[in-house]
Amino acid sequence: MTLNLNIAALRRRYLDGSLTPKQLVEDVDAAIGSEDVHHIWIRRLSHEEMLAYAMALEGKNPADYPLYGIPFAIKDNIDLAGISTTAACPDFAYVPEKSATVVQKLIDAGAIPVGKTNLDQFATGLVGVRSPYGAGRNAFDPDYISGGSSAGSAVAVALGLASFSLGTDTAGSGRVPAAFNNLVGHKPTCGLLSTSGVVPACRTLDCVSIFALTSDDAATVLEAAQGFDAADPYSRVVEKPSSILGSGFKFGVPKPEQLAFFGNPDTPQLFKDAVEHLRAIGGEEVEIDFQPFLDTARLLYEGPWVAERYAAIREFIENQPDAMFPVTRQIIGGAVKFSAADTFTALYRLKAMQRLTAGVWDDVDVIVTPTAGTIYRIEEVGADPVKTNSNLGYYTNFMNLLDLSAVAIPAGFQANGLPFGITLCAPAFNDARLLNLAARATAGQKRFGILEQQKTELTA
Amino acid sequence: MTLNLNIAALRRRYLDGSLTPKQLVEDVDAAIGSEDVHHIWIRRLSHEEMLAYAMALEGKNPADYPLYGIPFAIKDNIDLAGISTTAACPDFAYVPEKSATVVQKLIDAGAIPVGKTNLDQFATGLVGVRSPYGAGRNAFDPDYISGGSSAGSAVAVALGLASFSLGTDTAGSGRVPAAFNNLVGHKPTCGLLSTSGVVPACRTLDCVSIFALTSDDAATVLEAAQGFDAADPYSRVVEKPSSILGSGFKFGVPKPEQLAFFGNPDTPQLFKDAVEHLRAIGGEEVEIDFQPFLDTARLLYEGPWVAERYAAIREFIENQPDAMFPVTRQIIGGAVKFSAADTFTALYRLKAMQRLTAGVWDDVDVIVTPTAGTIYRIEEVGADPVKTNSNLGYYTNFMNLLDLSAVAIPAGFQANGLPFGITLCAPAFNDARLLNLAARATAGQKRFGILEQQKTELTA
Repeated sequence: MTLNLNIAALRRRYLDGSLTPKQLVEDVDAAIGSEDVHHIWIRRLSHEEMLAYAMALEGKNPADYPLYGIPFAIKDNIDLAGISTTAACPDFAYVPEKSATVVQKLIDAGAIPVGKTNLDQFATGLVGVRSPYGAGRNAFDPDYISGGSSAGSAVAVALGLASFSLGTDTAGSGRVPAAFNNLVGHKPTCGLLSTSGVVPACRTLDCVSIFALTSDDAATVLEAAQGFDAADPYSRVVEKPSSILGSGFKFGVPKPEQLAFFGNPDTPQLFKDAVEHLRAIGGEEVEIDFQPFLDTARLLYEGPWVAERYAAIREFIENQPDAMFPVTRQIIGGAVKFSAADTFTALYRLKAMQRLTAGVWDDVDVIVTPTAGTIYRIEEVGADPVKTNSNLGYYTNFMNLLDLSAVAIPAGFQANGLPFGITLCAPAFNDARLLNLAARATAGQKRFGILEQQKTELTA
Repeated sequence: MTLNLNIAALRRRYLDGSLTPKQLVEDVDAAIGSEDVHHIWIRRLSHEEMLAYAMALEGKNPADYPLYGIPFAIKDNIDLAGISTTAACPDFAYVPEKSATVVQKLIDAGAIPVGKTNLDQFATGLVGVRSPYGAGRNAFDPDYISGGSSAGSAVAVALGLASFSLGTDTAGSGRVPAAFNNLVGHKPTCGLLSTSGVVPACRTLDCVSIFALTSDDAATVLEAAQGFDAADPYSRVVEKPSSILGSGFKFGVPKPEQLAFFGNPDTPQLFKDAVEHLRAIGGEEVEIDFQPFLDTARLLYEGPWVAERYAAIREFIENQPDAMFPVTRQIIGGAVKFSAADTFTALYRLKAMQRLTAGVWDDVDVIVTPTAGTIYRIEEVGADPVKTNSNLGYYTNFMNLLDLSAVAIPAGFQANGLPFGITLCAPAFNDARLLNLAARATAGQKRFGILEQQKTELTA
């Protein structure tokens, strides 16, 4: 059975009385089924557990709840009350008494949690295979990676098992899996969505992200999920962006020699087509020097920010190192080589890069890049876990360091049937404007090769 | 000879033609003389060197230059073109080709540099005695410390050898010496004055500070010295403050048990008098919980920020540790015990403290504290260099961590003739408003026991 879980479509059915949350829960429970070949779930909710959320909506008016009866999946580093949070590390697991602020906001808006999803352990990775719960498999071809770290959250939406899902995105974890599963992946401005109740990766850079089938769906979720949270020191009040994305937009594209596709035969042309499409919908292309952004990305990858991941699980990694997934332990454990002086030195360099890159927003409203230059088979990642992962972050690692907002959107398919995606980014607090531009960009796009589930949503 | 170096007074004389920069240079050169019992100077400018600056003003209209012919001293961790910068460490010295941005702005406004002043080595200390160029001696009693780290800059103004001076202030170095020498010490909002051409202490917290005889003088200097500098990644564009200090002001005072005077017999009453005076000029007193501010101060003192000092001189301390002043080497060398993970953990705690303390600005416009609870004899500091220094930072260490602006002002004298001071602080970018309030507060104050030089200025 293929469900039509598009938020707008479900909403129409709730409003005209042709669907009830109870029925929705039946349908989703059946759709999820008992098999999980893609390794989506660390803990799916039982029929009864989902039903409890559905029954809480009884007697309430769907019109009053923007996410009334909308099923969503939660990356398993984000708390859902009463269900264990593992961060894909069984020995790290704990059962939170209350839900993460952002989860509670969604539930308060009427949404129904359907399960906790698989991830690269401690949200460390862009591949989706670094989990003792099994390697995340791509929704289009299970020989390929799902992308990560928000692996299961992306695949759940791609396969029509949830209307939307929450991921987290520190270095690309909310965008790469969107690209690999033909979804919209919104990486909000850091601090726009509370991270209270989220297992930290890099607290200075973390944000909760949204996977959805369409930009409009993502915007609906964003509206319900965002908001200042006094309990989260990194929460921010919405500010006027330093540069505002307008309707007639200039979009920056890296110089040809600054693009990297890692030998992929199809993605260079797919990116050209995407750029051409943005011109067709009224954008003005501007070639930009992407080197400072790449240098910033390298700073994250090679610099001391990994020590944030260490600090987040310090007691655990020092006492139970063997309980960790080997590659994750190796990466996070590597943090011990960085000193406090190294850290401040890197922070100075970041500050300088922030200054250096800020000038680009005088010339463009938005920067457009591939979300990832290529995609790998699971066995390719196994053969070279660090290099493949690094390649996937080429276009994503710099964004949170530079305080940007971003939306990853689908942008066609490779000959092998796997999707390709591009990312639009702009300075902080351009989230709604970026989602609006994403809607314009995807509305004009030919989409073929998409999953049956996704087709249903998009034509709903 | 006692010079009247008050800026407004000098300006009147330049405008009516009764003084020329050349004559001023003669006078200052004579006043500075050849003795330096207070250890003010690391490098005073020769008569000829000063004269070159004076001659550059020839033929120019004083009305066009807000600091026309105004003599100023420069802490020797701030570059003056062609004169060595030592940071009070002879082996570290280098001769800069160009002046620090802030120095150049003052020279462009007509000011005349008179010398580079002594400091706690690498601006590390609040005492003023940690220098191979001699312990800074108090302007009122040479047995007592000058305060530091901007030791010589404060004493030069107190003794009428410069109209104003530049210090730096990371943890209190621009305020403590002001209190101990009966001066106004303005610690601007971080980023308001460029730090390009300044030897870093803690780059994330450093600022250039101003010593002056009056708040009005300090405001005149601030106006000329401030401004965005693209070359300084930490430079900031002036923003509207998060809380604006008004003319009818509420001032916060710590609970009595949160005040510390370290056994000083006079300063508790002096502080009470100062509070009473602020009420007398229209302020409304509000008791506040000062504990979060004290906790933040401890964070600086005990936390990894010392690694910024290490990073600033990394190559030097690793290659020539013996070239450093022993206590300075010990303190900065201690940074090696902090890891990157420690650093991020401290940054998280700071972020939480920033959130926790921000609420106070809903209740008050300004916080008033002693600038320092007591003052020490040079020999007392020698007997316990770390503890005495730590005591002096009790009220100052938290300010830059919490992004506050502050003005230290004179507030009477102890029985032993040494001055006492209070500090007014408010959120970032309240600088001009704070100086205005400082002018009101000091105008209404009885000032006795002040130096002959200071009297002349104030009655000019």
